[in-house]
Amino acid sequence: MSAILKQRVRYAPYLKKLRSADDCIPLFKDGQYLGWSGFTGVGAPKVIPTALANYVEKNNLQGKLGFNLFVGASAGPEESRWAELNMIKRRAPHQVGKPISKNINDNKTKFFDKHLSMFPQDLTYGYYTKEKSNDLLDFTIIEATAITENGSIIPGPAVGASPEMISVSDKIIIEVNTATPSFEGLHDIDMPINPPNRPPYPYMTVDQKNGLTSIPVDPSKVIAIVESTTPDQVPNPTPPDEMSKKIAGHLIEFFEHEVKHGRLPENLHPLQSGIGNVANAIIEGLEKSSFKNLTVWTEVMQDSFLPYFESGKIDYATSTSIRLSQDGFKKFFDNWDLFSKKVCLRSQVVSNSPEIIRRLGVIAMNTPVEFDIYGHANSTNVNGSRMLNGLGGSADFLRNAKLSIMHTPAARKTKTDPTGISCVVPFSSHIDQTEHDLDVFVTDFGLADLRGLSPKERVPLIINNCAHPDYRDQLNEYYQRALFHCTKTKSLHEPHSLKDAFKMHINLQENGTMKLDNWDVKF
Amino acid sequence: MSAILKQRVRYAPYLKKLRSADDCIPLFKDGQYLGWSGFTGVGAPKVIPTALANYVEKNNLQGKLGFNLFVGASAGPEESRWAELNMIKRRAPHQVGKPISKNINDNKTKFFDKHLSMFPQDLTYGYYTKEKSNDLLDFTIIEATAITENGSIIPGPAVGASPEMISVSDKIIIEVNTATPSFEGLHDIDMPINPPNRPPYPYMTVDQKNGLTSIPVDPSKVIAIVESTTPDQVPNPTPPDEMSKKIAGHLIEFFEHEVKHGRLPENLHPLQSGIGNVANAIIEGLEKSSFKNLTVWTEVMQDSFLPYFESGKIDYATSTSIRLSQDGFKKFFDNWDLFSKKVCLRSQVVSNSPEIIRRLGVIAMNTPVEFDIYGHANSTNVNGSRMLNGLGGSADFLRNAKLSIMHTPAARKTKTDPTGISCVVPFSSHIDQTEHDLDVFVTDFGLADLRGLSPKERVPLIINNCAHPDYRDQLNEYYQRALFHCTKTKSLHEPHSLKDAFKMHINLQENGTMKLDNWDVKF
Repeated sequence: MSAILKQRVRYAPYLKKLRSADDCIPLFKDGQYLGWSGFTGVGAPKVIPTALANYVEKNNLQGKLGFNLFVGASAGPEESRWAELNMIKRRAPHQVGKPISKNINDNKTKFFDKHLSMFPQDLTYGYYTKEKSNDLLDFTIIEATAITENGSIIPGPAVGASPEMISVSDKIIIEVNTATPSFEGLHDIDMPINPPNRPPYPYMTVDQKNGLTSIPVDPSKVIAIVESTTPDQVPNPTPPDEMSKKIAGHLIEFFEHEVKHGRLPENLHPLQSGIGNVANAIIEGLEKSSFKNLTVWTEVMQDSFLPYFESGKIDYATSTSIRLSQDGFKKFFDNWDLFSKKVCLRSQVVSNSPEIIRRLGVIAMNTPVEFDIYGHANSTNVNGSRMLNGLGGSADFLRNAKLSIMHTPAARKTKTDPTGISCVVPFSSHIDQTEHDLDVFVTDFGLADLRGLSPKERVPLIINNCAHPDYRDQLNEYYQRALFHCTKTKSLHEPHSLKDAFKMHINLQENGTMKLDNWDVKF
Repeated sequence: MSAILKQRVRYAPYLKKLRSADDCIPLFKDGQYLGWSGFTGVGAPKVIPTALANYVEKNNLQGKLGFNLFVGASAGPEESRWAELNMIKRRAPHQVGKPISKNINDNKTKFFDKHLSMFPQDLTYGYYTKEKSNDLLDFTIIEATAITENGSIIPGPAVGASPEMISVSDKIIIEVNTATPSFEGLHDIDMPINPPNRPPYPYMTVDQKNGLTSIPVDPSKVIAIVESTTPDQVPNPTPPDEMSKKIAGHLIEFFEHEVKHGRLPENLHPLQSGIGNVANAIIEGLEKSSFKNLTVWTEVMQDSFLPYFESGKIDYATSTSIRLSQDGFKKFFDNWDLFSKKVCLRSQVVSNSPEIIRRLGVIAMNTPVEFDIYGHANSTNVNGSRMLNGLGGSADFLRNAKLSIMHTPAARKTKTDPTGISCVVPFSSHIDQTEHDLDVFVTDFGLADLRGLSPKERVPLIINNCAHPDYRDQLNEYYQRALFHCTKTKSLHEPHSLKDAFKMHINLQENGTMKLDNWDVKF
C-alpha cells in the first residue's frame, strides 16, 4: 500500500478492501449494467477497465464479455479500447472516440443519446434498468482523488452522473487516483431527490454553493478499492484558426450590439460554450474585447479558460467537468489558491439544469452538424443516420438559454470539393434543436438574428448572412421551388418541397458534393 | 355606469377613465404592437377587438389597419374576426381558428410559434419589440373580472402572459367583464423578474401558493376602462368516441404497470393533458380506474375535469387557464366553495416551467400530427409546411416530464381513403419533439414504451404496436431499405433512406393517400 494512498483514504475500513485491478476481474460477467464516473474524457475509471480489456484480449473474449455501459458523458481512451474489443453492448448518453462511434454505426453497440441533464435522473427512476430483476446497476466504478473520514468519495475533475449512479448501484468499486493531487474543495454536489419531494435548486449566482463537498456512499456497498496511477490524457489545445476567429468576431460584435441596446449587461450573462476550435476562438476573442467580469455556467471547462482567470477577465466559472491537458492540470494545481477560489464542479443535473440556465439567463453557444433555412439544427447524425458523439448537453442549454447561439463553418470539405458540404441545408437531415429553440446562427460569413421572426423571414437572413457563397443561389432556388409548391397547396407557413428537401444530402452521398447540377435531378 | 361595474372596480380613479369601446378606436394605428390577455380561447378582451373589427369593416380598412398581436395562447372568436378582416400582420405564439391559420398559410399573417413558457419571458427581454424605438408593446388590452383597491387587475379564467405583457406595455386598457362573476381568489400570480436576479419558483406541490392574487399595474399607464358584457364562448365538450377510449385504455393499463413496478406511486404523479377528445377519454378512463387522489399540473383545464373534483378523484388541479363551456362556468360558480379550494390559476411561465414540471415528475400527454419510426414527432405543420395551431406548451411538458407520452389515432381519413393518412411515418415532415424527449407513443392499436432503447430497437415497437395494420408492411419495407442503404454507408445508428423518407407524404399530396404502390416509385 503506497503512503500516498493511505493518506488519501481517510476511512480505514476501505483499506481492508484494497485489491489489484486484476483481482476484480472475476466480478464482471457478460451483460452486466455498469456505471462509470467521468465526463468529457476526464475523471473516468482507468485501471479496472484496462485490466478487463487486457483479460478479454488475452482470452479472446471479444463479443463474449460485454456490458451495458453508462457514463455521465464521454470517458477516456479506456472506452475506445473497450469498443475495439467489442465490450460495449449498450451505451448512453454520449460518447467520443472513433472506435465507439464506429461500433455504433456498424450495429455492434446499441446507443441512445439523451439530454445530459435528464439521463442521470431517468436512471434513478429505473428507466434504464427496467429489464433487470433488481432495477439497479450491477457496479459503479468511480474514480476518486480522496476518501473522507466517513467513506464519502471526493471525485476528480468530473462530477457528472456519479451521484445518481452511486445511489442506484448494487455494488461500488472505487479507483483512488494517486497520480493527480486531490481535488478536495472544488466540488459542490447535489444528491438526487426524486419527485414528489424534490426541492428547488437554490443557485442564483454562478458561485453560490449549497451542496456537499463529496459524494456520500453506503460503505457496505463498496466491495473494492483499487489504486490508480494513470493520469487523464487530454491532448493539448490547438490554437484557433482563421475561420474560427471570423466566427468569434461576428459573435463579439453581436454581443456589443446587445449591450448597446440594453438587452445584455456590460459583463454579459453567464456563458456556456462547447468544446473545440470555435469555442476556444470565442474565449480568446472575449479576452481581447472590452467585456469584463465575465462568468461561466457550462458543462465543461478547458485549457483556454485558464489565462482569463489569471488576468481577472473571468470572475468565476462552474461546470461539471474540467477537461485540462496534463500541462493544464499542472498549471491548475500550481496555482490552486487562485483557481480553487474561482472554479466549482457540480453534478451534471445541476450544471445542465433547465431552470438554472433560464434563471441565470445563460448565453449558450454550440456547434451543429448542419442547420436548415428555417432554423432547425442537427447536432448528432451525419446525413440523418451516422452518429457522431451524441446530443450531449446542447439541447439543455439551447432550449433554455437567454440567447441560444449555434456556430459553424459555412461549408466543409469533402475528398473532391473544398466546399462540398454546406452547413446550411433546405431541411436538416436529423433534428435535435428545433426552430423554437434557437435565436442566432453564425458562420465565418456572418450572423443571422432570428428572434421574433416568422419562418419565411428567417430564410433570407440565414442564406445571405450565413451560407457559403457557393451555395446561396442553390438554396434560394430551393426556397423558390418550395414557395411555388406551397402556394398551390396553400401551406405557406414553412414552405417545403419535400421532393427536393434532401437532394443536397443524397448528392453528397452519391457524388461527393452538395452542389447539384440542377434541382430537377431525380435520384 | 352599471352598479355591478362600480362594485367590481374598487379603485375609484379608474372609474374616471371609463370609456366606450368605440371611444378607444382612435388610439389604434396601423402597425402597432398589441398584447391581449387570454389563453386557449378564454379570458381574452372582447368589446374593443369587436369595436375595432366593426370599424375596419365599415370603413373598408381591411389590410390597412393591422397589428402585431401577441396573446398568451389562443384568443376567442374575436381573433377569428380580426383574421377575416386581415387585421393581424404578425402573431405569436399560438393560435386556434380557421381564419387565422388560413391567413398564416396564405402568407397574410407572419406567425411564429414559441414555447409557451418562454414567449412571455422573451417578450420582457425586448426580443419581440426590438425593431421599435421604445422597446415596448403599444397597448395591452386585458380582461379583468375585478379591480382591487390599489388598481391591481384580477383576471378571469386565464392568467397566461398578462403579467409579462403588462410589465412591458406603454399603455394599458382594461375590459372589466361583468357578464361573469369575479374570479377573485382563484389566482396565484408570479410577476416577471429577469436575470441575474431571478429567484427559484418555490412550488413543490400542485396546491402550493406563493404569488399574488392580482396583477399589479401602474395606474398612470391605464388609459381606459371599458365594460364588457360578452361572455367567453367555448363549445360544449363532445363525449369521447370509441377510438379515444381505446387509446385511453392502453394508457391506463400502462400506468397500472408502472405502479406495479414501483416507478409511479398509487396516485400517479401530477397529470398534464391537452385539449380534445383523447384527452377527455383519458380523464374519463382515470375516473373508472382504481387510481385515487390524483393531482393535475397542466396549462388548461376543461369541463371534463369538473365531475372528478366533485367525486374526490382529483384532489387538486392547477393550470394557467380554465376553459369551460358556459354550462361549465355556471356549474363552477354554483359550486364555488368546492372548486375554488381545489383549483388555482398561475402565470403560464409557471404552469409551463421546465423545472417545476421536472421537480413534480409530471406525466405529460399530448397529441401529435404524426411521429416517425425513430420517435420524433410533428406537433405543428401538416406535410412539413401547413401550420395548424402551433407548438403551444407541448414541448415544455414533453421535454421535462417524468413520463412523456404522445397519443393519436393510428390513421386518419382522407377524401378517398378511410385510412389515407398514417400517423406513423418514416421521417416526420416537421419535428417539434425529438427522439430525446419522448418516452411513450400510444394509438388505438397499442403502446410503445421506448425508454432506454436505441433507435433501431424502437422501430419494431412503433410499427407493430402503434401503426395502423394497413401501413405496417409498408413501414417495415422502408426500414429494410434504410438498413440496406446504411449498411453500405456504415451509418447504422438511425438508418434512413433519404430518397424514400418523404414518399408517403408526397404520395398523400399527389394521390390522396399515404399508401404507395411500391417504394421504387419516383416523384
